[in-house]
Amino acid sequence: MSSRRPTIGVFDSGFGGLTVLKALLELVPDADYLYFGDTARLPYGSKSVETVARYAVEAAHYLESHGAQLLVIACNTATALALDRITAAAHVPVIGVVEPGAEAASSVSKNKKIVVIGTEATVGSQAYRKALEARGLHAREKACPLLVPLVEEGWVEHPVTEQVARIYLGEAFSDGFGEADVLLLGCTHYPLLKPLLQRVAPSHVNIVDSAESTARAVAVRATELLPKQTSTSEERRATPRLKFFATDSVEKFRRLGERFLGHSIDSVEHVDLKE
Amino acid sequence: MSSRRPTIGVFDSGFGGLTVLKALLELVPDADYLYFGDTARLPYGSKSVETVARYAVEAAHYLESHGAQLLVIACNTATALALDRITAAAHVPVIGVVEPGAEAASSVSKNKKIVVIGTEATVGSQAYRKALEARGLHAREKACPLLVPLVEEGWVEHPVTEQVARIYLGEAFSDGFGEADVLLLGCTHYPLLKPLLQRVAPSHVNIVDSAESTARAVAVRATELLPKQTSTSEERRATPRLKFFATDSVEKFRRLGERFLGHSIDSVEHVDLKE
Repeated sequence: MSSRRPTIGVFDSGFGGLTVLKALLELVPDADYLYFGDTARLPYGSKSVETVARYAVEAAHYLESHGAQLLVIACNTATALALDRITAAAHVPVIGVVEPGAEAASSVSKNKKIVVIGTEATVGSQAYRKALEARGLHAREKACPLLVPLVEEGWVEHPVTEQVARIYLGEAFSDGFGEADVLLLGCTHYPLLKPLLQRVAPSHVNIVDSAESTARAVAVRATELLPKQTSTSEERRATPRLKFFATDSVEKFRRLGERFLGHSIDSVEHVDLKE
Repeated sequence: MSSRRPTIGVFDSGFGGLTVLKALLELVPDADYLYFGDTARLPYGSKSVETVARYAVEAAHYLESHGAQLLVIACNTATALALDRITAAAHVPVIGVVEPGAEAASSVSKNKKIVVIGTEATVGSQAYRKALEARGLHAREKACPLLVPLVEEGWVEHPVTEQVARIYLGEAFSDGFGEADVLLLGCTHYPLLKPLLQRVAPSHVNIVDSAESTARAVAVRATELLPKQTSTSEERRATPRLKFFATDSVEKFRRLGERFLGHSIDSVEHVDLKE
């Protein structure tokens, strides 16, 4: 890859991080991207801190060794449970999804009451609540473990998914949080459910998507960190170059990944992580 | 552990295999059990053959090295994708769940038409279809990827689960399989849904549970394989001794595991598998 374009490594336990990559391709098109999906060991959302940290650090090292100059932890669970450990282990700057998501939610909320939805592990870590409370907001976190499998089943506009979302959001927007005015999507699978969640959430609620917020943070950081790597105008016009790595079936990665990325995935390299 | 009681190793990707262990405790109480749940890498149901085989062989070796004299692969995905590889790698006899399940379904079915439900990987392997066709039966396999997360959410008697089951079974019992008279549960999570599935399936359908069928096969094999290990009457009266191993959080294993096993789990040992 050219040394005159930044190389950005994007990591997720599976496919969800592709929603972050999708946002990045729009905001920072003049870069090369390495995407690592740890699909052999997904999902992280139901696993412990120790396990998630170990897996995430391995993936970070893999991306670094392949030339990543900036790491994006495009996985809420890995960010929530292990950002400190990844940052300590990495030799390049690391950006997670929690802080950008919290910052965006904070700027959108008027009454400073926010509902965050995510996986069991993300919610268990209380990472979003802490990040929001540090900004003076009140936050309720709600684990929604069925939403990821529903998205992976392809039921993004399905009556069952709507019923499940009604149950989860009904519980979340209650008991003092009925007037919360922001729903923060604390899982990179959830952007695919945005239209459905917008219908199901109380009508006064704005949805903030941590995938989009993170892409904006990366755009700023990429400019700051790589000032000398000015691209030629020809390079800037070029489309982003993408390379995908997956620890499980490359065929499945291609098939499911296209749903998240919104366009075709040409080639995926299989990675066998020896721990 | 006493050398005069057989030690049976039971392996699953997570908690589902505990439904097999539960059936074993009733049928073969005069044995010691080692249960290995590979919870750090679950679920296997959406992973590839290579990955599942590698993980399952590691777990089999772990159980052998801890004294297992007979291995029960209490995981439909691991059995369907990797039984041959596990059997080749092991030094003790190995019993999977597919053959016992197919055998039981074959003896129950009158019109020789059977519907099998399981995970994506189990169905993709066509292991049940081949085992049933070898017995002269017609089989339709249907992947039901949402049922495992619904069981793990604890929604075993929930309107959403009923609606999901209606969709899956409606698709399975159609187009030439409307008159199938057996529903074979090809996933060890599904026994928890048995009452709900019995309500949702066509009224003429009998449910065959591969967990129960496997326990019966193990009971026969344990007697055949360990003929010289005659227990004293005192040992035979003794309750089974249990030891649990999990690759992810032991606390979560205890909490979720009790739901599958039907009684308390006193202690779980954490295992860090270095590949």
